Amino acid sequence: MNAPADRPPLPQALAEALASRFGSRFSIAAAVRLHHGKDESSHVPMPPDAVVFAESTAEVAEIVGLCHRHRIPVIAFGTGTSLEGHLLAVNGGVCIDLSAMNQVVAVRQEDLDATVQCGVTRKALNAALNGTGLFFPIDPGADASLGGMAATRASGTNAVRYGTMRENVLGMTVVLPDGRILKTGGRARKSSAGYDLTRLMVGSEGTLGIITELTVRLYPVPEAISSAVCTFPTLSAAVKTVIQTIQLGVPVARIELLDALAITAINRHSKTTLREEPTLFFEFHGSPTGVREQAETVQEIAAEHGGQDFEWATRPEDRTRLWQARHDAYYAGIGLKPGCRALTTDVCVPISRLADCIGETYVDLEATGLVAPLVGHVGDGNFHMVLLVDPDNAEELGRAKGFASRLAQRAIRMDGTCTGEHGVGIGKQGYMALEHGDVAIDLMRAIKRAIDPDNILNPGKILPPP
Amino acid sequence: MNAPADRPPLPQALAEALASRFGSRFSIAAAVRLHHGKDESSHVPMPPDAVVFAESTAEVAEIVGLCHRHRIPVIAFGTGTSLEGHLLAVNGGVCIDLSAMNQVVAVRQEDLDATVQCGVTRKALNAALNGTGLFFPIDPGADASLGGMAATRASGTNAVRYGTMRENVLGMTVVLPDGRILKTGGRARKSSAGYDLTRLMVGSEGTLGIITELTVRLYPVPEAISSAVCTFPTLSAAVKTVIQTIQLGVPVARIELLDALAITAINRHSKTTLREEPTLFFEFHGSPTGVREQAETVQEIAAEHGGQDFEWATRPEDRTRLWQARHDAYYAGIGLKPGCRALTTDVCVPISRLADCIGETYVDLEATGLVAPLVGHVGDGNFHMVLLVDPDNAEELGRAKGFASRLAQRAIRMDGTCTGEHGVGIGKQGYMALEHGDVAIDLMRAIKRAIDPDNILNPGKILPPP
Repeated sequence: MNAPADRPPLPQALAEALASRFGSRFSIAAAVRLHHGKDESSHVPMPPDAVVFAESTAEVAEIVGLCHRHRIPVIAFGTGTSLEGHLLAVNGGVCIDLSAMNQVVAVRQEDLDATVQCGVTRKALNAALNGTGLFFPIDPGADASLGGMAATRASGTNAVRYGTMRENVLGMTVVLPDGRILKTGGRARKSSAGYDLTRLMVGSEGTLGIITELTVRLYPVPEAISSAVCTFPTLSAAVKTVIQTIQLGVPVARIELLDALAITAINRHSKTTLREEPTLFFEFHGSPTGVREQAETVQEIAAEHGGQDFEWATRPEDRTRLWQARHDAYYAGIGLKPGCRALTTDVCVPISRLADCIGETYVDLEATGLVAPLVGHVGDGNFHMVLLVDPDNAEELGRAKGFASRLAQRAIRMDGTCTGEHGVGIGKQGYMALEHGDVAIDLMRAIKRAIDPDNILNPGKILPPP
Repeated sequence: MNAPADRPPLPQALAEALASRFGSRFSIAAAVRLHHGKDESSHVPMPPDAVVFAESTAEVAEIVGLCHRHRIPVIAFGTGTSLEGHLLAVNGGVCIDLSAMNQVVAVRQEDLDATVQCGVTRKALNAALNGTGLFFPIDPGADASLGGMAATRASGTNAVRYGTMRENVLGMTVVLPDGRILKTGGRARKSSAGYDLTRLMVGSEGTLGIITELTVRLYPVPEAISSAVCTFPTLSAAVKTVIQTIQLGVPVARIELLDALAITAINRHSKTTLREEPTLFFEFHGSPTGVREQAETVQEIAAEHGGQDFEWATRPEDRTRLWQARHDAYYAGIGLKPGCRALTTDVCVPISRLADCIGETYVDLEATGLVAPLVGHVGDGNFHMVLLVDPDNAEELGRAKGFASRLAQRAIRMDGTCTGEHGVGIGKQGYMALEHGDVAIDLMRAIKRAIDPDNILNPGKILPPP
């Protein structure tokens, strides 16, 4: 937990300045540092040298400004739910905990937008929207902070219908590496006024700026919502159902694939009694007639591929239970192998390659002899394998990493991406050049250098070491 | 037409290199240069020193590389339909005409995407899609090239449902200022793999790179389409209908506002017999039932605001005629005042401010004594005033510019943007700092410097002079 020998500890002048300015909101306690040096991935924790709990954009700017003066790394921390080691303090430095910046600044019902501080979580925003007839759809599973979700370009189950954070952030307040405060975008639904700084910051994982406030799009709660599960004789039949549904343009709100093992895990974890076969979870949003039409179309497609009858969850509480079970699939998966750690993959391919990609991946999985439930936002061509690995078994960990690496490369070879929604962090840096090519990596480096010449914002992330 | 005294002509070595490499596809003829030095705006033409007609990405890279060696400006030219002086050669240099790069490279029906060369126009792409059951929705009126549309972040009538070029470009091939070839994005529907270079290039107006190829999203042709027009007693009643429709979440595909003067212009130009009152043009896409439902909801809203009965255009040819008339509104407007030039504005505000923004603008228009039909993609809060100005009347031109300037500032004051879809070019540079603030402008400059340190790509555009 001490600073590695190859880097200096926090300069005393900086530590003293932060301590005197922030009092008990500045901490170098080991437990606090450890908590802020790990995420939900299987990466080994790397604690920062200190943590400051910020309460406003001005405070974040002040902290960043101080660190900038000392050329000390700054890492933003939301809820710690990232999955690729995004917040590990690989070069030490100061972590800014943003969870106290949890105010919903404004909800503008008439414009279908809301401005929130970065620490507001998606569930907190939706709770604040209760009674307005509006909701915020992006749903990565974890109850992540909206700032963190923007920083990793998160998405999740609803993205097939509502888009990702890329499409749903209208504007942001961002603290730049020198402590200046940037405003990006605005509240107009569209604009052609210059470089798209909003989209540049979305997905930049805290390496270009720290998002402190954001304005997001909201959507009317659909008049009718219905959810259903449907099981299939084979994974391939389920995937074909997805592909045809998307190609027909059915505006499904959610279409999620879980393999038999994932369903077994869910049944054990959530005390459900789902049939333990390859399964699609659906949700339809629209008018009552629209929802009925969508459901009928999809049922016909499913039937063609040997899908069983749909089991409907029509009452809100049943729907919530169903989707909670889906969201818990990750934790449920871990429960399949007590004491294990999960290594989660996250690829996304064009929908025409989805069946191939999953098929080859299964062959590889079998050959590798690992246990890994599959869950996926397959409407977008995005799926995860949750590799269950004994943390004390280096050989097994090595096999899992090899498998994950081949999967990432397979997705890239199929015109896809090594990460659909989790981000790069330190976990996917090795695939960046393969996916984007050297010119793109050079350009990303040039942008990073131009905005953060001293490399103090979340150093060592996204871009592979030169 | 000669190079102004304050800049050197094209270096002889460069001119000779281009001439010997490209033969008759290199031109310094006055007529060719003039054609490439003007767009459809009222800005005074500024011809480049030479024009090269490129036929491939490799050729574009070669031309840019040569110009880079001589530090000579390079300007990309698609169809010349931009509206803010984007392609004027303010510092001279070489214009690359991309219109011969008009191949549809691939249509992937199963993935709902297509890869095209930058010179393919939106109508040409849709013609190529004929029979596939798919279409490309973005529709800025002019039959612009897709490269140009991406470069200006274009949108148009369908954006309220299908988004703008920002949402619909998946990946691109871009020639960088030093002649290197960049690939951005890919074909996955979503990705969290690093900085969003695609979105950085979309809307960069040829100042960061020259887009030579792009992959765009396609959509299934809706099972049912219906279009209607509805007139209102006042403009305000029409606007309120729009606002309520959007706030209810009705997924209208198009919802366009034209004031009485715009309808008069259309009637004269297109020989239509529309009632000359404030009018909404609607289009609904979906299943037959869905379209009927949407139309019923909107008809109820319209009726509450004194809207007349909907007049339906159900046959494809009637629909085409209706939308052609809408698209011709710009040219029709010019026809209202023979010999005039049009100065077109383009603001976009949050929908809750739309009625206020249009209301104040009308008061201003009356006080200023100008003739200007209003047309707008009001579902997005975006509208244009087509100011009809006698080009020989400096006083009138001055009044029009003052009006346009007040409108841009009004939109920004209302949390909106000075350009919803036309872009900045040289026409909107004066509002960039007001809209974005100095920190954002600094950041945009830093990005421009990092990518194009010699400022050779479309210099003098987007960013206001320091």
